Amino acid sequence: MPEFRQNRITGEWVIIASERASRPEDFHRDVSKPKPPTHNPACPFCPGNERMTPTEIIADRPPDTAPDSEGWNVRVVPNKYPALDPSSEVDWFEEANLFNGIAGFGVHDVFIDTPRHDLTIATMSRRAVEKLFFVYRARYNQLEKNEKILMINIFRNYGVKAGASLEHPHSQVLATPIIPTRTQIRLNVAKEYYDIHKRCIVCDTIEATLKAKERVVLETERFIVFEPFASQSPFETWVAPKRHCASFGETLDAEIVELAQIMRDILHRIYVGLGDPDYNYFIQANPARTKHRDKYHWFVQIMPRVVPSVGFELSSGIYICTSKPEDTARFLRSISSPR
Amino acid sequence: MPEFRQNRITGEWVIIASERASRPEDFHRDVSKPKPPTHNPACPFCPGNERMTPTEIIADRPPDTAPDSEGWNVRVVPNKYPALDPSSEVDWFEEANLFNGIAGFGVHDVFIDTPRHDLTIATMSRRAVEKLFFVYRARYNQLEKNEKILMINIFRNYGVKAGASLEHPHSQVLATPIIPTRTQIRLNVAKEYYDIHKRCIVCDTIEATLKAKERVVLETERFIVFEPFASQSPFETWVAPKRHCASFGETLDAEIVELAQIMRDILHRIYVGLGDPDYNYFIQANPARTKHRDKYHWFVQIMPRVVPSVGFELSSGIYICTSKPEDTARFLRSISSPR
Repeated sequence: MPEFRQNRITGEWVIIASERASRPEDFHRDVSKPKPPTHNPACPFCPGNERMTPTEIIADRPPDTAPDSEGWNVRVVPNKYPALDPSSEVDWFEEANLFNGIAGFGVHDVFIDTPRHDLTIATMSRRAVEKLFFVYRARYNQLEKNEKILMINIFRNYGVKAGASLEHPHSQVLATPIIPTRTQIRLNVAKEYYDIHKRCIVCDTIEATLKAKERVVLETERFIVFEPFASQSPFETWVAPKRHCASFGETLDAEIVELAQIMRDILHRIYVGLGDPDYNYFIQANPARTKHRDKYHWFVQIMPRVVPSVGFELSSGIYICTSKPEDTARFLRSISSPR
Repeated sequence: MPEFRQNRITGEWVIIASERASRPEDFHRDVSKPKPPTHNPACPFCPGNERMTPTEIIADRPPDTAPDSEGWNVRVVPNKYPALDPSSEVDWFEEANLFNGIAGFGVHDVFIDTPRHDLTIATMSRRAVEKLFFVYRARYNQLEKNEKILMINIFRNYGVKAGASLEHPHSQVLATPIIPTRTQIRLNVAKEYYDIHKRCIVCDTIEATLKAKERVVLETERFIVFEPFASQSPFETWVAPKRHCASFGETLDAEIVELAQIMRDILHRIYVGLGDPDYNYFIQANPARTKHRDKYHWFVQIMPRVVPSVGFELSSGIYICTSKPEDTARFLRSISSPR
């Protein structure tokens, strides 16, 4: 029997189409991809080509190395083809009371995740993934000081279907002078839930998910990895800190270490179980300088791109998920952690 | 200079990334697709194979032909692998105050657009497209009689990237016992706008778009085809009736004739100009038995799938559009109408 399910945190409805459901193992892709070289002399993100990118903003690099020189572990550079312009002002315009917008301002940077051209989170070392997540936090906290920024979006596009245009492992941050409509809905839901229950909706979801067990993939001291009750698409996975915390920027060092470990673990399971699929992940970080600290709770959303979105989904926003999150969670639990 | 723009009708923000903008002609795809046969003996939607589909619900066929026999122009049949179950009841369930949903009910039908296996709207005859749109309206009005249905979504997935799993030209309808969250936002915006201005937001957008001219692709006596000011992706196109009308089911015969003609025209221009791209279109039809008739106005949205969606878009709902709607409108205007 198919089911409509509502994701209480995002407000979105989905259809869990059990009649047309695939077994989790059916999503495994057998396309053998050519293995990239460890170093590509033509790649602007590979060591030795630091001058091919705009000037480094921050980096994880040994103290005896100069910016834009070799020897780094993670670099953050402005996007060479930015979607937004960091040097301009926030200028609102409006025409005919119907065509309104903001000219210009925003920040669009690239994280070069690792010097190695051929790796991805699933295959990077635990220590390398840690460094990346520490740099995410550092750049987040830098950007939060800019009063023009209302929202900081850190995300990773992996593979062509997920929108990646360069092969070298990289992540991105887009910081905007507006709060996106979708984020605003999530904030309103959280606020409303808190006003009624005097509790955080993400904390309560974590507790109820742990109690129900069937959608949990991994649990550590500080984090839970689970398939949401109302997954939009097969293998949608959320990674949430157990400690209530509104801002990703306030994540503790010990949490960053554990987050890196658990992200590597779940992305490795997806890599092995689904045959290295394209995916996006993004940190749902809540607005910069978040005010309602009791009400919001950051988390990471992972979306493997195993099925295309269809007209009904674009039209209604109701996604049709052709697998049960309870089944995909069981499948991902059955795969071993990386060494 | 990049711009944030807001679509006032949907409430959604987009980034028009002019710095990374492509020229409209750069989206032309040169992949030569194998031409399908006019008839495929193995295809369940081809004439002669009527028994391979579930029993016909309605059809456009000569009065002297029996249901599920040959001779039809358009058939509507239940989806063999439905995402929803038309025979069940609307049963709400809830668990832990967090996991709520509805078991079962909904309608999921397929329109077989034409007996010809090898055609698409862009290449079908004007008369054939008319018949299809008359059948859309007929099925819409049938479904609207079902009190359990709150929303009727008619849509077309064309090509693999748009989620089509069968080659034979077809459309679909999904009728749901809920109003999707995204639709509800559009309704709220329209209601709020009407309460302030005592006018319909779609009527005002049509008027202002015609006045500004630069985003108009086609204009006929009864319809306007335009690129929205805040297009989500390159070549997003809207087709709207000039006459204020809340329900697609109340479209006049003369309007259906003109709608079919104009849909064929714009899809032909997209077919020629972009090299037969995958696309989705959907009728934004407003809830069944719409109450606030002054406030809502149906329209059709066409989304060519020329770029994949990326992590930032999935996270924030803010789409990055790498072309200016003013440029894509000019490009589409320059292409001739079909014969």
